[in-house]
Amino acid sequence: MAPVVLIVGAGDYIGAAIAKRFAQGGFTVSLGRRNGDKLAPLVTEIEAMGAQAHSFSMDARDEESVVETFAQIENNIGPLEAVIFNVGGNVRFPIEETTSRVFRKVWEMACFAGFLTAREAARSMVPRKRGSIFFTGASASMRGNDGFAAFAAGKAGLRAMAQSLSKELGPKNIHVAHLVIDAGVDTAFVRERIKQAGGNPDTLPPDTLMNPNSVAEAYWMLHQQNRDAWTFELDLRPYGEKW
Amino acid sequence: MAPVVLIVGAGDYIGAAIAKRFAQGGFTVSLGRRNGDKLAPLVTEIEAMGAQAHSFSMDARDEESVVETFAQIENNIGPLEAVIFNVGGNVRFPIEETTSRVFRKVWEMACFAGFLTAREAARSMVPRKRGSIFFTGASASMRGNDGFAAFAAGKAGLRAMAQSLSKELGPKNIHVAHLVIDAGVDTAFVRERIKQAGGNPDTLPPDTLMNPNSVAEAYWMLHQQNRDAWTFELDLRPYGEKW
Amino acid sequence: MAPVVLIVGAGDYIGAAIAKRFAQGGFTVSLGRRNGDKLAPLVTEIEAMGAQAHSFSMDARDEESVVETFAQIENNIGPLEAVIFNVGGNVRFPIEETTSRVFRKVWEMACFAGFLTAREAARSMVPRKRGSIFFTGASASMRGNDGFAAFAAGKAGLRAMAQSLSKELGPKNIHVAHLVIDAGVDTAFVRERIKQAGGNPDTLPPDTLMNPNSVAEAYWMLHQQNRDAWTFELDLRPYGEKW
Amino acid sequence: MAPVVLIVGAGDYIGAAIAKRFAQGGFTVSLGRRNGDKLAPLVTEIEAMGAQAHSFSMDARDEESVVETFAQIENNIGPLEAVIFNVGGNVRFPIEETTSRVFRKVWEMACFAGFLTAREAARSMVPRKRGSIFFTGASASMRGNDGFAAFAAGKAGLRAMAQSLSKELGPKNIHVAHLVIDAGVDTAFVRERIKQAGGNPDTLPPDTLMNPNSVAEAYWMLHQQNRDAWTFELDLRPYGEKW
Repeated sequence: MAPVVLIVGAGDYIGAAIAKRFAQGGFTVSLGRRNGDKLAPLVTEIEAMGAQAHSFSMDARDEESVVETFAQIENNIGPLEAVIFNVGGNVRFPIEETTSRVFRKVWEMACFAGFLTAREAARSMVPRKRGSIFFTGASASMRGNDGFAAFAAGKAGLRAMAQSLSKELGPKNIHVAHLVIDAGVDTAFVRERIKQAGGNPDTLPPDTLMNPNSVAEAYWMLHQQNRDAWTFELDLRPYGEKW
Repeated sequence: MAPVVLIVGAGDYIGAAIAKRFAQGGFTVSLGRRNGDKLAPLVTEIEAMGAQAHSFSMDARDEESVVETFAQIENNIGPLEAVIFNVGGNVRFPIEETTSRVFRKVWEMACFAGFLTAREAARSMVPRKRGSIFFTGASASMRGNDGFAAFAAGKAGLRAMAQSLSKELGPKNIHVAHLVIDAGVDTAFVRERIKQAGGNPDTLPPDTLMNPNSVAEAYWMLHQQNRDAWTFELDLRPYGEKW
Repeated sequence: MAPVVLIVGAGDYIGAAIAKRFAQGGFTVSLGRRNGDKLAPLVTEIEAMGAQAHSFSMDARDEESVVETFAQIENNIGPLEAVIFNVGGNVRFPIEETTSRVFRKVWEMACFAGFLTAREAARSMVPRKRGSIFFTGASASMRGNDGFAAFAAGKAGLRAMAQSLSKELGPKNIHVAHLVIDAGVDTAFVRERIKQAGGNPDTLPPDTLMNPNSVAEAYWMLHQQNRDAWTFELDLRPYGEKW
Repeated sequence: MAPVVLIVGAGDYIGAAIAKRFAQGGFTVSLGRRNGDKLAPLVTEIEAMGAQAHSFSMDARDEESVVETFAQIENNIGPLEAVIFNVGGNVRFPIEETTSRVFRKVWEMACFAGFLTAREAARSMVPRKRGSIFFTGASASMRGNDGFAAFAAGKAGLRAMAQSLSKELGPKNIHVAHLVIDAGVDTAFVRERIKQAGGNPDTLPPDTLMNPNSVAEAYWMLHQQNRDAWTFELDLRPYGEKW
């Protein structure tokens, strides 16, 4: 039977690329997204690769929804071998204009949803003493910046949680890793931001933006590591990036 | 008129010591604590030093309560010159047993309350272009550890927020700092933990636990720094500490 | 023509494993070691795999020796595609007993030799605008510890140099990475240390020590990364490691 | 009898300011500098403050010179209570153009001289179980940057050594600290650089450059800390600094 992966935050770019990479590696793929209907084209694409794909409408910030999704997968699809948390949600506000609603929501997406995902993954995996739990981080995971109090608080919180879990679950044979995406990924959103900053995303030198497939490859590599030499953290950025 | 400081989380140890240090330095002291009635002895003690002290029952996790406390101080006591966020709340749980309620509550105390405090402080201070906003951190602010997923997430989130604010508010002449307490402070709670670990807190070598007054002195020093050489972060630990 | 890799510090364990991994990946292998004669068995082993291997007696701390080795490889073997610096040299001394000779020698091995290697690699690679330069780091690269003033100074220096080079050479299409080995690798030296500490290396649980082949796999993966998503730094440790 | 401080690298700015701050605090001041003759005006200035000052021609990179200076101070002036290492030496070169002589010299100034100073200080202080050993760091102590391979390697090495010593000597009642100067100090050199970059150092807003006296104040504060709450590391930068 094919091993099963769940991607929480299976959007159009990184999440989709991870799904396809694991499908290509022989996995049955579970996809979670707020509006599961939007996953139909991705499911079709993965099935065309000859793998199985299942989509779930899940609100990663909602405990019941997360618990229910894990139960459905474990009961109906198979034991989870890998769980990847890929929920983002960048915002920028001066501190005086940051509402408590925004601060809380950013944290719920960046950190609390990661906790719910990780806990349910741990509950499934610890008794089996096997599995991978990986998190997508960002530059803001490593340092705060002007205007990013809410986002940095959420991402740094996620990272500290992941580090705690790495120390807690490693000895239980569960691989926890945190992948720091320290530059722009090639998405419509990033291309739009480049335009707004007066640039032209279509005339950028090649490989200036990260391809979602390259990020997916890093996740696949992490899952392939032998347990005598696991990585907790690695960074990713394009060759030309200033950092 | 005496400058005004607010200590959010004015408990029996560090908060109380900070209050007394600033009173000694000529400040009028505002004290916030869940149950403001418990602050009566501290108010008396500070008044005996010849300074003014005001106590507030405030729930630092509750937006309305924080906003109201700031309004009362700014309207009735005076413009805030320094605000110190000193709310803690350590817990230790295996991840599988960490309820969403605990995870959320720890974050609300460690991080969200710090955000509410900092935002209200910024709203008061930015128009005046002066003031200090300081945060109490812990070892968990810097790294996660087995069993501390919730606490580390909260404290690392607070630190990332403070770092963001330092970059955002520094140019507005507001000093933001984060003080990392990387060892045990001499409190009843810490002494109890030492006993539970089989030690005897009464026979420890001198200066093995941090005195709250020493922590308070570090806060006072930070507030005294000239603005051409502000510190964002410093650590504190006793001379004999293994780290 | 096969691409060429040079391993500086091609000892019996990690260096040898990296050499075999790159040979298996189609590389011609150059091996540098103080006493090149000791490399004969490794050369034989790699040749038996169907790849070419060349050994060099080089003192990585000696500028002339490093320059000469690079010249020989570039002139007689082929253009270097990857250079891996894998020279160690851990020592532990109280500071009062650390001689200037020891402090200097540890730095020459850990850091200065890395500089000479990296500079010669850059001189070869920058005009071609392609290549990988990787460094082996250790726990001491990330933090100092009691008794390790000399070793930590050397390894932290190497890491800071590598980070500088990553920023300098990345835009020139040269991939610089630093791999942090944060635990014991399965070597005779480590097994001896475990015995001295009262343990029995033969009865350790499986995968408790890192296999040199797993470290080599990480280097190979780094070299395979697409340039739109390069990693500068990753850590490696066994699943059961306390950290 | 007045306690004695030695400032290694007693130049015209930070070193001189530290000397005057400790003199003002009741210390007898020893000043070390390559060319001790240049210290005459500073000695005069300190004596005019009513304190004693002694100048030494010392090459901090030369073991004999360092050992001899410590011997003279300990034998003829008094037991050293505080030793401050303040030797700099920033350079910027592309890696291909960095000569081994430059790389070595930068390390000798930034790191090796710090080791010699710290070791001699430890040899004097450990038997007495008291004293402070402080180091001046820079942005490059914390991260490497394009063109700064040599400087970052030296400063990161110094920091790692200082951290090791903090852990080793703290329990022996010796306070080791590292002060990170993360911005420009107001010196002729920095003003010249601003001009070269097209700016006008004379029309900068007030407090944009750090005053050496403010840095000196931070050192003085560190030396005043009670041993139950010692700081290992703090950063300093002006309020308006981008970071």
